[in-house]
Amino acid sequence: MEMQIYLPLILVVFAAIITLGYVFVLFRRVSRIAVNDKRVGDISKHIHDGAMTFLIREYKLIIPFVLGIGIVLTVLGFIPALEGAEGIGWKSAICFVIGSLFSAAAGWIGMSIATKANARTALKARDDGMSGALNTAFSGGAVLGLSVVGFGLLGLAGITLVAYLITGDIKAPIQILTGYSLGCSMIALFARVGGGIYTKAADVGADLVGKLEAGIPEDDPRNPATIADNVGDNVGDVAGMGSDLTESYVGSILSALTMVLLSPDLLALNSTNPSLFFKYLLFPVLLCGIGAIASIISVIIVRAKKWADPHKALNIATYIATGIVIAASITLSLAYVGNWKLMICVIAGLLAGVGIGFIAELYTSDAFSSVKRIAKESTTGHGTNIISGIGVGMKSTWLTIACLGAVIAISYFFGGEYGIALAAVGMLSTVGVTVSVDAYGPIADNAGGIAEMAELPHEVRGITDKLDSVGNTTAAIGKGFCIGSATLTSLSFIISFVKAAGVTISLDDPKVLIGMLVGAMLPYLFSALTIGSVGRAANKMVDEVRSQYEAHPEILEGKMAPDYNKCIDISTKASLREMIVPGIIVLVSPIVAGFVLGASGLGGLLIGGLVSAIMLAVFMANAGGAWDNAKKYIESGKFGGKGSDAHKAAITGDTVGDPFKDTAGPAMDILIKLMSVISLVIVPILSTDGFKCLWDLIVSLF
Amino acid sequence: MEMQIYLPLILVVFAAIITLGYVFVLFRRVSRIAVNDKRVGDISKHIHDGAMTFLIREYKLIIPFVLGIGIVLTVLGFIPALEGAEGIGWKSAICFVIGSLFSAAAGWIGMSIATKANARTALKARDDGMSGALNTAFSGGAVLGLSVVGFGLLGLAGITLVAYLITGDIKAPIQILTGYSLGCSMIALFARVGGGIYTKAADVGADLVGKLEAGIPEDDPRNPATIADNVGDNVGDVAGMGSDLTESYVGSILSALTMVLLSPDLLALNSTNPSLFFKYLLFPVLLCGIGAIASIISVIIVRAKKWADPHKALNIATYIATGIVIAASITLSLAYVGNWKLMICVIAGLLAGVGIGFIAELYTSDAFSSVKRIAKESTTGHGTNIISGIGVGMKSTWLTIACLGAVIAISYFFGGEYGIALAAVGMLSTVGVTVSVDAYGPIADNAGGIAEMAELPHEVRGITDKLDSVGNTTAAIGKGFCIGSATLTSLSFIISFVKAAGVTISLDDPKVLIGMLVGAMLPYLFSALTIGSVGRAANKMVDEVRSQYEAHPEILEGKMAPDYNKCIDISTKASLREMIVPGIIVLVSPIVAGFVLGASGLGGLLIGGLVSAIMLAVFMANAGGAWDNAKKYIESGKFGGKGSDAHKAAITGDTVGDPFKDTAGPAMDILIKLMSVISLVIVPILSTDGFKCLWDLIVSLF
Repeated sequence: MEMQIYLPLILVVFAAIITLGYVFVLFRRVSRIAVNDKRVGDISKHIHDGAMTFLIREYKLIIPFVLGIGIVLTVLGFIPALEGAEGIGWKSAICFVIGSLFSAAAGWIGMSIATKANARTALKARDDGMSGALNTAFSGGAVLGLSVVGFGLLGLAGITLVAYLITGDIKAPIQILTGYSLGCSMIALFARVGGGIYTKAADVGADLVGKLEAGIPEDDPRNPATIADNVGDNVGDVAGMGSDLTESYVGSILSALTMVLLSPDLLALNSTNPSLFFKYLLFPVLLCGIGAIASIISVIIVRAKKWADPHKALNIATYIATGIVIAASITLSLAYVGNWKLMICVIAGLLAGVGIGFIAELYTSDAFSSVKRIAKESTTGHGTNIISGIGVGMKSTWLTIACLGAVIAISYFFGGEYGIALAAVGMLSTVGVTVSVDAYGPIADNAGGIAEMAELPHEVRGITDKLDSVGNTTAAIGKGFCIGSATLTSLSFIISFVKAAGVTISLDDPKVLIGMLVGAMLPYLFSALTIGSVGRAANKMVDEVRSQYEAHPEILEGKMAPDYNKCIDISTKASLREMIVPGIIVLVSPIVAGFVLGASGLGGLLIGGLVSAIMLAVFMANAGGAWDNAKKYIESGKFGGKGSDAHKAAITGDTVGDPFKDTAGPAMDILIKLMSVISLVIVPILSTDGFKCLWDLIVSLF
Repeated sequence: MEMQIYLPLILVVFAAIITLGYVFVLFRRVSRIAVNDKRVGDISKHIHDGAMTFLIREYKLIIPFVLGIGIVLTVLGFIPALEGAEGIGWKSAICFVIGSLFSAAAGWIGMSIATKANARTALKARDDGMSGALNTAFSGGAVLGLSVVGFGLLGLAGITLVAYLITGDIKAPIQILTGYSLGCSMIALFARVGGGIYTKAADVGADLVGKLEAGIPEDDPRNPATIADNVGDNVGDVAGMGSDLTESYVGSILSALTMVLLSPDLLALNSTNPSLFFKYLLFPVLLCGIGAIASIISVIIVRAKKWADPHKALNIATYIATGIVIAASITLSLAYVGNWKLMICVIAGLLAGVGIGFIAELYTSDAFSSVKRIAKESTTGHGTNIISGIGVGMKSTWLTIACLGAVIAISYFFGGEYGIALAAVGMLSTVGVTVSVDAYGPIADNAGGIAEMAELPHEVRGITDKLDSVGNTTAAIGKGFCIGSATLTSLSFIISFVKAAGVTISLDDPKVLIGMLVGAMLPYLFSALTIGSVGRAANKMVDEVRSQYEAHPEILEGKMAPDYNKCIDISTKASLREMIVPGIIVLVSPIVAGFVLGASGLGGLLIGGLVSAIMLAVFMANAGGAWDNAKKYIESGKFGGKGSDAHKAAITGDTVGDPFKDTAGPAMDILIKLMSVISLVIVPILSTDGFKCLWDLIVSLF
């Protein structure tokens, strides 16, 4: 009996360690590629130092939050009424700190290698052509992808194993894992929001003053903000995206475990058929263990071959991992648990992940009509460009929701609430590859920038441009994937919350209705704040660049190097300062709602926030992607090409789309996940006997 | 006992008849003002004919829908299981037709007089100055305002009276009044959506080709689309807005009546204290009767004085009516029902209406910082103008939601679900004045256009501009009011729906979750469709104007009158065609959701749709208003004034904001109200014994 639990957990811990071991190997391989060009080396060092400085400052800023929350969790555990409550107490606090550390470590390693791989990709492109460059960029991405999986899984399976060893009770680890998940969420909050503001402040600032005022091309070394722009790609798309998916990954597995405990049918097995009960518990964990190995295999296979077409290579990586996980889910469902319905849920989740990615491509790729229409509407002016982009973004919600609705329905039909959580696990089981493919994008983008700045031969830029354009597609697909996985994970958390709260949260309860209204408003407020932050930070950047040009006109003539570090410093400071207010709103809102409106009002807040945030996230991501590609489509020579009026209008759309798709949109994922995890943590307080929310206190007056 | 019911109802019917009588008087007074300028008369006739043609064609298009739904309602009544169900059967079908006819009649009368009052306002401005012009424009608006109240109340109280006379059962009329409300909603759907598309297609089309291409000013008679533009103001802001508020008005009273029947405490009174029971039922009806008379009084008082400041006059009108209604609610609460809590709910609703209006002003008036910031951001380009406008719109949601949340909480604390409905009734009790003030705007706007086209003396344009600028503020406030009242009314309907369905609609039910996701998506899809419609229709308008200029270059030299009717025809046809698809989506979605997901899924759809639609409505209305006024602020000479780069950027914002604030935004009100009324009508089917939705059928397979 004991072995039935220990063996799978040990295997998964082992898989996690193998994954991290392979991360180490890949890291060394990429680092060892010689940087045999001084200029490339210098630029790369600038970017690396800038990125690491940002990360150090960001982590420093987070430390008080982590410690504060850790202390609160510990103190709450000493309240007698809350003893043994899920996610509270010193054990949860330790898990919380571990979660923060692991997520931070994955981000750190990923950023470290991404800012090394960029220069090496550029140089490989020069020396070995496409296949060498692709190999390097993909290996760099894989370091992040496998770190996310390795750390996520190590923490989950490790904590479970240790806690079970100590207590001998399988429920014990699950109760403290909420703390672990919250830790990952905390890092994700700041990494996503801060990173999102950083990247677009630098990008928009650099474009406004460089392209439009000084008339110099993108990535020109004369632009003081250009290094900050390249740092931003890493800060946003590497560290931010990685921590976002770490959170989803850990959250989905945790919610599947929680569902087993909260679903009466499955929990009953604990006494009638404990062996089967444990199989239900360990199924998602084992599946993700296999997913980790599958990711390693697909990375190895892709690295072993010389590719001429990057798109094909990345697709193959995805197909291999997906194929292995599907096979594993079938095997585990039939041979291990003995319930064929589970594999349906897993596969539905996997396919929905692919489906949402494809829908994102449908609305944001210039191969389809939407982007072409935006390009055409650009010929009649800025206004029509904006209107049609907004129309495309809004319209794209319907297919995305149809896809999400279908996966919820299917997984529920076959597996109940546990099935919905399994669908999330299924979608995220191949996250190692998904993140690898996604993180490859900013490395390729950076490589192009470095090639430009270091004036490498023209064909190098040709190769990096090709890599980059594939990266744009994978980025759009990745965003859809982030939204889809965040939705399913949050949905599972919310269902757990409702069950744990032990109250019916009914739609004719005004507390629920007010909660929903406030919840639906929060994503708008949050978006307004982060978009405003980008504007303010970009303006500071513009001022700095202008003053450098004024003080030293030689910079523009290329006779003097601009002060890159000042611009990096501006982006860093601005993004760190600007992320505080939105961050606090996310952390505090569910707590305030819980104490004012009670558990049912908080449930309303969560679900209102979820539906509102998904819509905004899909709308903003796809509108932004469509504007971006409409601009590129015109730049490719359509509707007058570069410099035409249509192009100017398309640039307007792209400027609006930048904070949409890279700042506010991705932040929505964090908003909904973090609010639901916090709610899960405070639900024991809200459902304590004797707890009265402000609402009930007021009602008792009348 | 009987007299206790008859007397109040007869009094209210009497008040409605007096109101309609005063409408007749006002109509004649305005019509009798002589049009002693041939050119003014011609232009006015063009606008009048265009508007009436649109209305006739629109009504013709609606007739099959009205008849079809009427027949369905009748047929459903013959199904034995549904006998006696609310909103179904031939009696409801008759009420449904009456509702359509009354709402259509109010729109017709309002449009008729608005398109007569415009010319007369211009001429009065020439002959009598500000006070005469204001008097005429306000009287024109009051015809619509009082028609809305008169017809709405006559139908409600009249049907109640007749049904009670026949059956002697007070529940009978309430059961068939849902049909009446649905009738009003049907007209509102097509009037709002069609009107919204018409007005902006004409406006954007006229601007694009006139201002930007031909370089002629607004309202220039050489622009073939200019009459269509003026027709559009009436079609959208008179007929559309009027039918929107008729729907809310009728809906709020009906939902208060329904709440009495659905609330166990109040229903229990029926046997313990029937006299008090009837008082609760008749309280909202009586209050609205007094509100109607209060509106007449305030119109009479404002008309009796000569005003130099239109803003003051309109405010006084609002204050008088509000004061009377507050006094009435206190008197009725204390002396009639004997429950002081009712007046709190009514007054909370009234104040919330004012509050939401003020919040709209805060974010859209150039007296406050938001609009100034957008104007400033316009100096750095089109992109920053758009981003800051979107930011302002998104940010404005939080105060609006705080205000709505407060009124829901307060009215629930004091009056339960009945209290929430009373808050809606309170907000709408002065709708006679609100609509009068609102409808005055397009009349003043039209008067300015006519003065320009007919080349009346310069000081006429000065007066109409002043009237118009006040109209812009009242329009923004009116939009906030439409959103607020739609929210409270729909919320009451949804609560009625949940109670009538007799199922717990809980958040951990996946049917509810899927319903919510789909519901939240619908406003986005709907907005995308209507915004797209405006674009397509505007493009057709541009093509027509261009071809007229090409065929007859003399038009631009002012030597030949353009063919205005062709442009009117294009707007009419395009808007009628384009409103079909969004209209059908609204009508069909709740029915499909009900049959696929059942009552609980439909409940999810309604509430998901409500929160998503409110947010979009507030966001779009306020962003649009802010862009509009930022442009006007720059035109007043700030940041470079007319013709500067900042002005061009601000025009882009205004172009984007036009379909936001006048097409998609207001359509949200209809979307949520209509979907909830339809759900109330089909709920008896969904809660019939033996009814199985598709979801349950599939579940039974596994």
